[in-house]
Amino acid sequence: MSLKDPLSGLLAGLEGGLAVMVMAGDGIVVEEAAADRTTFDLQVLGVEYATVLREIRRTVEVIRAGALEEVCVTTDRLHAVMRAVNDELFALLVMSRDGNLGQGRHRLRLISFELARELA
Amino acid sequence: MSLKDPLSGLLAGLEGGLAVMVMAGDGIVVEEAAADRTTFDLQVLGVEYATVLREIRRTVEVIRAGALEEVCVTTDRLHAVMRAVNDELFALLVMSRDGNLGQGRHRLRLISFELARELA
Repeated sequence: MSLKDPLSGLLAGLEGGLAVMVMAGDGIVVEEAAADRTTFDLQVLGVEYATVLREIRRTVEVIRAGALEEVCVTTDRLHAVMRAVNDELFALLVMSRDGNLGQGRHRLRLISFELARELA
Repeated sequence: MSLKDPLSGLLAGLEGGLAVMVMAGDGIVVEEAAADRTTFDLQVLGVEYATVLREIRRTVEVIRAGALEEVCVTTDRLHAVMRAVNDELFALLVMSRDGNLGQGRHRLRLISFELARELA
């Protein structure tokens, strides 16, 4: 299964969508799609957010909060939305601060379910 | 300024609201309010999420994503929403998974601005 098309499809027409990646837990980018206006180093971004996600996974285990589903990080410049695909992979969507976050979260959720099904 | 009343006010009538805390960056809880049905150890939860927030702050610096505003973590049992109040304090809202997250995020944003103003 090619991941490129669904990832490009997610970004298409998504207001403020900058990049979307499927990554392994260690930060290695399995596949990615980026809008032309992306000015971030996607590899660095992937590695850094993978570290965040590992820390959060550890935390939700400690406090027995259940299985991790989604993490959103908003700064004054960006939204980053991460979703677990399965035990090994996660999807990361990067959007500009004024992008349509609700739409982005919705699309990322759909694609994560689709990937989980395909990879099962 | 007493923080207890605004925190209790935030929880009042918030569907699925379990607990809200104002914490220092090292996880020490400055003030808290909890719904009766809360079954979590708020101190542990505070320390753990403070660790997550430190990690995320470090990450957004590395990737130059701007100043951290909000972090949402959703598991199959809980939503946790964190907002920076100022350089030292942050606010943490814990909600049940089926709670009204939009309402919770909105209320936490208002109270964080209010606290930042009061403490400036």
